[in-house]
Amino acid sequence: MQMPTGVHALVRRTHEDRVLRALQENGAMSRGEIARVVGLSRTTLSEITGSLLQRGAIVVVDTDASRREGSGRPAERLALDPASAQFMGVDFGHRRVHVVIADASHEVMASGSVRYDDKASWPTRTELALGLVDRLSAEAGVHFGALQGVGIGVPGPYPAPDAAWPRAASGTTVLRPAPDGVDVAFAERFDAPVIVDNNTRLAALAEAISGADSVADLVYVRLSDGVGGGLVVGGQLVTGSAGLAGELGHVTVEPAGRPCRCGKRGCLETVASVPGILAACWEFGLRLENLQDLAAAVAGAHPVADRVLREAAAALGRVVGAATMTLNPAKVVIGGEITRLAPVIVEQVAATLAGELFPIASAGPVVEAARLSDDDGALGALAAVFHSSPLLARYPETAEVKSGSRVRNSTDEGAAHVRP
Amino acid sequence: MQMPTGVHALVRRTHEDRVLRALQENGAMSRGEIARVVGLSRTTLSEITGSLLQRGAIVVVDTDASRREGSGRPAERLALDPASAQFMGVDFGHRRVHVVIADASHEVMASGSVRYDDKASWPTRTELALGLVDRLSAEAGVHFGALQGVGIGVPGPYPAPDAAWPRAASGTTVLRPAPDGVDVAFAERFDAPVIVDNNTRLAALAEAISGADSVADLVYVRLSDGVGGGLVVGGQLVTGSAGLAGELGHVTVEPAGRPCRCGKRGCLETVASVPGILAACWEFGLRLENLQDLAAAVAGAHPVADRVLREAAAALGRVVGAATMTLNPAKVVIGGEITRLAPVIVEQVAATLAGELFPIASAGPVVEAARLSDDDGALGALAAVFHSSPLLARYPETAEVKSGSRVRNSTDEGAAHVRP
Repeated sequence: MQMPTGVHALVRRTHEDRVLRALQENGAMSRGEIARVVGLSRTTLSEITGSLLQRGAIVVVDTDASRREGSGRPAERLALDPASAQFMGVDFGHRRVHVVIADASHEVMASGSVRYDDKASWPTRTELALGLVDRLSAEAGVHFGALQGVGIGVPGPYPAPDAAWPRAASGTTVLRPAPDGVDVAFAERFDAPVIVDNNTRLAALAEAISGADSVADLVYVRLSDGVGGGLVVGGQLVTGSAGLAGELGHVTVEPAGRPCRCGKRGCLETVASVPGILAACWEFGLRLENLQDLAAAVAGAHPVADRVLREAAAALGRVVGAATMTLNPAKVVIGGEITRLAPVIVEQVAATLAGELFPIASAGPVVEAARLSDDDGALGALAAVFHSSPLLARYPETAEVKSGSRVRNSTDEGAAHVRP
Repeated sequence: MQMPTGVHALVRRTHEDRVLRALQENGAMSRGEIARVVGLSRTTLSEITGSLLQRGAIVVVDTDASRREGSGRPAERLALDPASAQFMGVDFGHRRVHVVIADASHEVMASGSVRYDDKASWPTRTELALGLVDRLSAEAGVHFGALQGVGIGVPGPYPAPDAAWPRAASGTTVLRPAPDGVDVAFAERFDAPVIVDNNTRLAALAEAISGADSVADLVYVRLSDGVGGGLVVGGQLVTGSAGLAGELGHVTVEPAGRPCRCGKRGCLETVASVPGILAACWEFGLRLENLQDLAAAVAGAHPVADRVLREAAAALGRVVGAATMTLNPAKVVIGGEITRLAPVIVEQVAATLAGELFPIASAGPVVEAARLSDDDGALGALAAVFHSSPLLARYPETAEVKSGSRVRNSTDEGAAHVRP
């Protein structure tokens, strides 16, 4: 993760966050009341409210003539601006960008998507995303003067470990590096801290905090063209020392198995990705071309499809079992479209996992299919920003994605949606 | 982890920490200077300095007659009390307790151990530990009025998941529950927050921050009568949802292997614990009774011992490989006395691990033998307390165990040691 802010900006932001939080909890307050509640000196507080007023984060709602502050003048009362966007989540997929904008209470104010060609350059994608933000803000009547942060999800590992990374020993490109400049473009445009992370990892965070039963420890695996993963540990998204945490798809499951695009042999990805599953079906004479064919075979209860899916899920269960012994998560979530098409996957992962754990039922995690769709990475990006706010760092207790308006708005693409 | 403090105490402690930190960095200061540096109101600041003076954390060092505060009186200058203990680490082993006391700069002020019978009750152990603390503090001339926290390491998993936990399906006792009351006894005696955790996990934290090259992401495994482990992720010690994180010894490595005391079959522990290694040597006709026999066989380059150790280390390498793909640590540390006796273990783990990772050398972690001895759990407990201080939460940058005086003092048992 990257936070283009120095220590001084962070301290100021912490004070600011405390002032914003006090106004959110108590409604309109005078400067004197705010100073008492947050324990800051009047000098420090005046600097902060001055900056917040100038940026449009707060407004003067009235002058309480019955109360007089130290100067003898009637006390102005300050409040949060209801048109003020506080958080923005941006999810760059291979073929579209999705943006979600939320207010101080984490309510979604506006959301929408724009498509692009999967060969579009990063400057083009960035320009399209910023144009979408302009359109959404104009339609919803929101402004960004008090934006607390922007979370951006990108495909592939982030940050890229080093220049040698994109090429494996075999010479094939393994995983694309992080796109340069997208973070700077958003930071400059909105004068706010920007967090960038892998969008599979952000999806893990979104799953951890979705719904009322949010958890602090979660293992997330997504089965798709590849097999990606993300971890939430102790309420924190895990990046790892070189940005590679969560690469469960490249744990070895068959030492003598098929070559993997990473340069190893027998990785989980060779067995449990959609191409890996289709290849195994071919080996058993079931010639499926794509996910739709596989869905039809599952719907028809084809025994080869069932067997191959169970074997793939058993391999996944063993990998998730080792990760569970390591991390003791409360929940394991399996994502990717194939998981919705073939419920046998989650069933078999749960069954295999049970055998890999201590033989005590209560110690095992819940295993479930992803609740959010693969398009919901923007919610994860949003969550990462909620989460980066010092006041919200313990998010399982305090910050939850309010999904009411989201669920209705995030399904269509190419259109902007605003809160009624 | 447990922190017997409410939100209000935590906020007060944060302010307090900022005041203590300012005095530590700047030396003696007047109240007016402190208030400006930390940005608190004079009212809040006066409450805090009053409380700190009363508890003996700080002292009035002089009255600067050339400066006058708002009242017109000469300004008192305040400073940290050099006899004031700030942090305490306590490590309860099976047969001894070890205590380390540190000052505000994390320098060890006093340390020592007391032995007890391995059947000693927890009340007895607690009483012995508190007596040791009294003796150390008397000899070193330190007091605990400003103690910021106590870290306590205990054997076995902590917290215990539930009442069903200590017994596996087979009816054997798996792992002992956390000792009741030890945390309360220390919290009441010192009026300070207490953190309790598994001492293997605390050893992981101590390894992560030992020396100048501290790391934020580390996988630690200890080979002993069993195989335990601990994880540091993003600078945080990982507990897991039920206190079970880091149980790498119970990842399955041989699905048809020997029964394990946990009720499963073929766990890493059956292969890589000291009893597991001795049993495998017997299977090959090499009849060793204990660790000393094994050390002699290693010293004599016995081929069976070498083969068995390599096989055990290869199994460990595969488990560590999966954990490394999951967590992307900067360092893997192998602890336990056998690791020092048989360097082949670390060699083979590193070799096996290399084959389990992406084929890019730069992405792999450093693999090394533990730097601290198994008796150094108290340093981990101390580190956990440094770490729990809000100002020190990002410890890899700021808080390091100063080991100069420790190394000389912590080897003997049964004696108290104080800083010269």
